[in-house]
Amino acid sequence: MTDVVIAGLGQTSVGEHWDVGLRDLAYHAMHAAIQDASGLHPQALFVGNMLAPNLSHQAHLGALLADFAGLTGIEAVTIEAAGASGGAALRQGYLAVKSGLVNTALVVGVEKFTDQVGAGVEEALATAADSDFESVQGMTSTAQAALIMKRYMYEYSVPTDGFAGFALTAHANGAGNKNAMFQKAIRPETYVKSGEPPNMFDAAPPADGAAALVLTRPELLPSNFPHLLVKVAGSATSSDTLALHDRKDMLYFEAVHNSTGRAIKQAGITLDQINLFEYHDVFSIFAALSLESTGFAIRGQGWKLAAEGAIALNGRIPCATMGGLKARGFPGGATGVYQAVEAAMQLRGQAEANQIAGATYALIQSLGGPASTAVTHVLQRLD
Amino acid sequence: MTDVVIAGLGQTSVGEHWDVGLRDLAYHAMHAAIQDASGLHPQALFVGNMLAPNLSHQAHLGALLADFAGLTGIEAVTIEAAGASGGAALRQGYLAVKSGLVNTALVVGVEKFTDQVGAGVEEALATAADSDFESVQGMTSTAQAALIMKRYMYEYSVPTDGFAGFALTAHANGAGNKNAMFQKAIRPETYVKSGEPPNMFDAAPPADGAAALVLTRPELLPSNFPHLLVKVAGSATSSDTLALHDRKDMLYFEAVHNSTGRAIKQAGITLDQINLFEYHDVFSIFAALSLESTGFAIRGQGWKLAAEGAIALNGRIPCATMGGLKARGFPGGATGVYQAVEAAMQLRGQAEANQIAGATYALIQSLGGPASTAVTHVLQRLD
Repeated sequence: MTDVVIAGLGQTSVGEHWDVGLRDLAYHAMHAAIQDASGLHPQALFVGNMLAPNLSHQAHLGALLADFAGLTGIEAVTIEAAGASGGAALRQGYLAVKSGLVNTALVVGVEKFTDQVGAGVEEALATAADSDFESVQGMTSTAQAALIMKRYMYEYSVPTDGFAGFALTAHANGAGNKNAMFQKAIRPETYVKSGEPPNMFDAAPPADGAAALVLTRPELLPSNFPHLLVKVAGSATSSDTLALHDRKDMLYFEAVHNSTGRAIKQAGITLDQINLFEYHDVFSIFAALSLESTGFAIRGQGWKLAAEGAIALNGRIPCATMGGLKARGFPGGATGVYQAVEAAMQLRGQAEANQIAGATYALIQSLGGPASTAVTHVLQRLD
Repeated sequence: MTDVVIAGLGQTSVGEHWDVGLRDLAYHAMHAAIQDASGLHPQALFVGNMLAPNLSHQAHLGALLADFAGLTGIEAVTIEAAGASGGAALRQGYLAVKSGLVNTALVVGVEKFTDQVGAGVEEALATAADSDFESVQGMTSTAQAALIMKRYMYEYSVPTDGFAGFALTAHANGAGNKNAMFQKAIRPETYVKSGEPPNMFDAAPPADGAAALVLTRPELLPSNFPHLLVKVAGSATSSDTLALHDRKDMLYFEAVHNSTGRAIKQAGITLDQINLFEYHDVFSIFAALSLESTGFAIRGQGWKLAAEGAIALNGRIPCATMGGLKARGFPGGATGVYQAVEAAMQLRGQAEANQIAGATYALIQSLGGPASTAVTHVLQRLD
């Protein structure tokens, strides 16, 4: 079967883009990705988005964004899997190219939180949870995460500042990413002063942003193509219950475990060959559980990897290398595409101050809800 | 490349299911499809849905419905392209199986309009239009269709009862479909008495419903598999502008023309080999323009095919053979999957009173907005 490679990358800065609409954000990222791919023309567009039908009264983004990008007429569709929408769009684009029926696919993730403010945002985010049994009771995504975190800290006797390492690492790395929402390192006492966990530094900021990439078959690229190629070497999606009360064990992400195992196996490697891991740190507890459920840490020890510096740029398994959701920001359904773009920059050697020297394999993971959906990809540098 | 076949079919009746929730509706269709496929186990679920995030405060249907169907853990995702969501979900399921990475895919379309009533429904449907330039001015989907219809009637001097044939055919066929919302034929004077077009009979009724099908590779089926196989012989999606004012010509559906051409070409046939056409008659004007843009009628003459009986079960090109959107009902993002299930029943010879004798090729077409998205499939009976 043919390989699928990433040929173009584009992104906007992440933050509060009050002066730019959803379609404009997406346009900037799509245009940049196509330019970066030397003008390769896509036949299909896969849009990762979670909240536009609620926050922007706009569904049908596929056709809308194809037209706005000057690609009127091409195949276009929106992919939704809550916070994993971006990863899921990448997965669908990958399957389309892999099928042989689409030569070149454009994948864009876009989210525009600032079309609304206040309670509307939290209510829209809560559509990721089980409406009939959770949201209707007032349960929000943040409340879910807090319940899991408190239980984890109790079970494993985690000290009050035990999770600080996740935010410290993310903000340190955000300082090297000109597209990050927060580009300033924080000090340990800043975390502690923010109060009992989960505090502000245990949750990623919802933000506007768009990222895009071009997928194609390597044989379609010109011989003088200017970039190192990044292969999608592994791709897998797993699901789990939406509602926490339906889980046997709320301290383990089964969908992370399963999708990671399958993606790693497809790539023909072992976990210790991974050079960087872009996890879905929308909450610091999700980062800890992701490290454990993938197998980078044993159960109950994920937080120690952060505390001990193992996830730093020069650590054993660098994570959130461009700031992660915590410092780059959390643009909803765009997040998974940002992860792919950032990881591809690392593999191309374009990550500047944050470069992981000699990175060959990157693991990226996009979660919806408390890993109710986990979309996992292994990206590989082709020399 | 491997063939992709439809191995299982399931559907609920279409109507106002006040006593059944969205997940229950979807479950009934999914369960029936898996049973019909002799219990084949899917690895992936593709959900076509348009309105649940707005009307039911529920996104993230992929993982939710996988779990509720007893398929916890499998790959699952939601596909959205407004009214074409069902067709788009079929397309993504097809690409997944075609890629060789998914053996068996379950496709379900589900919509639950009755979670809300009144203006909320029209507002939610309007998210299919261009929010910044159309919906914000009060333009709804129905208003869009009315503008197109009035222009068409003016341009082509269509008499006041010119479109009656579409509703008459749909209702006549609905009478033979036990899952249809309206199972009673209507008389020509009923259309006329309903007033100046577009009248009630020119628009399909929003309704609750779910339909599902199982896609797989034929070599995975047991030798004693009980059904005739239906092959997905052609599959194509095209897009167009959302906003009417961005069109050069609002009386021609470019996306219908382009996707039909590609699907027919992939199937290796010509249009005159098609034995039935399930068009997206959410408005009678869409049916007329679909007949013209596919090539079944010349421009300005689509309405005459209905008026002259050419689209009846015994006509030259039978359309809406199980009632179409007008009489079977319009369950939003489920519609495209209903079309596929009904066409597959025709090809299997299971359409009972509405059977098109010897049907070998069916064309099905799912539209979002005024053909801003058109997803077109050719299904083929394999003997």
